Amino acid sequence: MSPSLDFFYDAGSCSLAVRIVLEELGIPYSAHRVSARAADDEASRSAWRARNPKGRVPALSPVVGRTAGEPLLLTEVPAIMTYLSRLRPTLGLVPTDPAREARTIEWTNWLSSHVHAVAFGGLWRPSRFTDDTLAQVGIASRGRANVLDAFAAIEALWGDGRRWAVPDTYTVADVFLLVFYRWGTMIDAAMSNYPAWTAATHRLLERPAVATAFHKDGLQLPQL
Amino acid sequence: MSPSLDFFYDAGSCSLAVRIVLEELGIPYSAHRVSARAADDEASRSAWRARNPKGRVPALSPVVGRTAGEPLLLTEVPAIMTYLSRLRPTLGLVPTDPAREARTIEWTNWLSSHVHAVAFGGLWRPSRFTDDTLAQVGIASRGRANVLDAFAAIEALWGDGRRWAVPDTYTVADVFLLVFYRWGTMIDAAMSNYPAWTAATHRLLERPAVATAFHKDGLQLPQL
Ligand SMILES: N[C@@H](CCC(=O)N[C@@H](CS)C(=O)NCC(=O)O)C(=O)O
Ligand SMILES: N[C@@H](CCC(=O)N[C@@H](CS)C(=O)NCC(=O)O)C(=O)O
Repeated sequence: MSPSLDFFYDAGSCSLAVRIVLEELGIPYSAHRVSARAADDEASRSAWRARNPKGRVPALSPVVGRTAGEPLLLTEVPAIMTYLSRLRPTLGLVPTDPAREARTIEWTNWLSSHVHAVAFGGLWRPSRFTDDTLAQVGIASRGRANVLDAFAAIEALWGDGRRWAVPDTYTVADVFLLVFYRWGTMIDAAMSNYPAWTAATHRLLERPAVATAFHKDGLQLPQL
Repeated sequence: MSPSLDFFYDAGSCSLAVRIVLEELGIPYSAHRVSARAADDEASRSAWRARNPKGRVPALSPVVGRTAGEPLLLTEVPAIMTYLSRLRPTLGLVPTDPAREARTIEWTNWLSSHVHAVAFGGLWRPSRFTDDTLAQVGIASRGRANVLDAFAAIEALWGDGRRWAVPDTYTVADVFLLVFYRWGTMIDAAMSNYPAWTAATHRLLERPAVATAFHKDGLQLPQL
C-alpha cells in the first residue's frame, strides 16, 4: 500500500528522532545520509539544497497526497514524526485523543523552537545569529546557559513521577527528548542533575527500536 | 459540553493567531491580557510566570483530559491551534488527512522555530541570545536579514499559484502566516516584494473571523 519511504538524515543530528519513529513502526525505508553541515564540502551541500531549499535534515519522501507544485520532500522533525505516526495510528505515537495530541505538539514545538533552534542553535551554530565573529563566543555561552535552563525545566516536569513526557503514554515527545539528552552528554552537561529525566531515558534506551536506530545511525548508546 | 475556555494573550503578539482560530470556531471564550514582555512591570510579569513558567503568551485553559500533575495551561501556538481545531474537525483548520496535516505542521513548526524564534527573536529580542549588550546590534541586524530571507522563501512557495499555504485548503498555517505578515509591515519590510503572499493576505483579511480577532485585540487591519 504505502510506497517505500526515502529518509534523508545525518548521523547523530535531530534526524535521529525520525529514525527512531521509523524503527518503532517497523516499516521499510531507505536511509540516505546527506551533507548539510557547513563543515561538509560545498558541492555536496549545494546538491542537497537543490533538493531541499532549507538545506537541513531530516526530510522524508514521498508523502502521499501531495498536490501539484507542492515540494516533494516533507521537512521539520515534528511534521515528519506526525506523518509517520498516522501510518500506524494504533501505536499512538502522536495520540489522536485531542488533549494528549495537544500536549505532544506542545512538547515537540517547544523542543524544536526553543531547545533546538534557540538554545542548541546558539551554542553550536552562533553564526546563524550574527555576522560579527567576535560576538559568537557570547552567543555560544548564552546558548549553553539556555540549554541548561531548558534541561532544568524538563526535569521539573518529571517531578510529578510521570513515566512519559505526556504522562500516561509513550509518544514522539519522548523520542525527540532523547536527542537532546544525548546532545547533553555530548556537551558534558551534568546529566546526573536530572535524575527523573535520566530514569526516563534509561527506559527509552531499553526499547529495541531505539537501540536499532542508534545502531543504524552508527552511534553508541549513551552510557548513563 | 466543552467548558468555557480561558485565553491568555497580549495584543499584537503571536497570540493573535490563536485568537483568529477561536473566532473561526465561533465558540465562547474569555480573553485575559497578560504582561509577558520585559517592558511590562516586574510584578505583573512574575504573577504570570507563577501560572506559566515559560512566562510567554499565548496560553489556553482548561484543556480537558489533563492528568494529575499536568500543568493546567496549554502553551505553544501550534499546539493550541491544533487543540482548538479538533473541537470543530469539519472546519479542517488542522486537516485530518495525513498528508495535509503533515504539511500544516511543517508550516507551523518552521514558522515557530525559524521565523518566530530565530528571525524575529533575533531582531526584537537579541538579549535572549547573548549577555553581551554590545553584540545585540549585530544580532538584531542578522535577525532582520533572516526575516527577509524567510519572507522570500514564503513568496517562492506561493509561486505555484496556490490559494492557501497548504495549497487546496484553508488551515492554521495561513492564520499563523498572517501574524508574520503583520509583523513585516511593522518593521517596514517592503511587503510589495511579496505579491503572491500579499494577495493571499488580502483574501484572509476579508474573513469576518480575522477582522473580529483584530478588532478584539485592539489592532488595525494592515493597509495593503
Ligand atoms: N526545524 C528543523 C531543524 C532542522 C535542523 O536544523 N537540522 C540540522 C541538524 S540537527 C541541520 O540540518 N543542520 C545543518 C546546518 O547546521 O547547516 C526541523 O525540525 O527539522
Ligand atoms: N514558542 C512559543 C513562543 C511564544 C512567545 O515567544 N510569545 C511572545 C509573544 S509573540 C512572548 O510572550 N514574549 C514575551 C517576552 O518576550 O518576554 C509559542 O509558540 O507560543
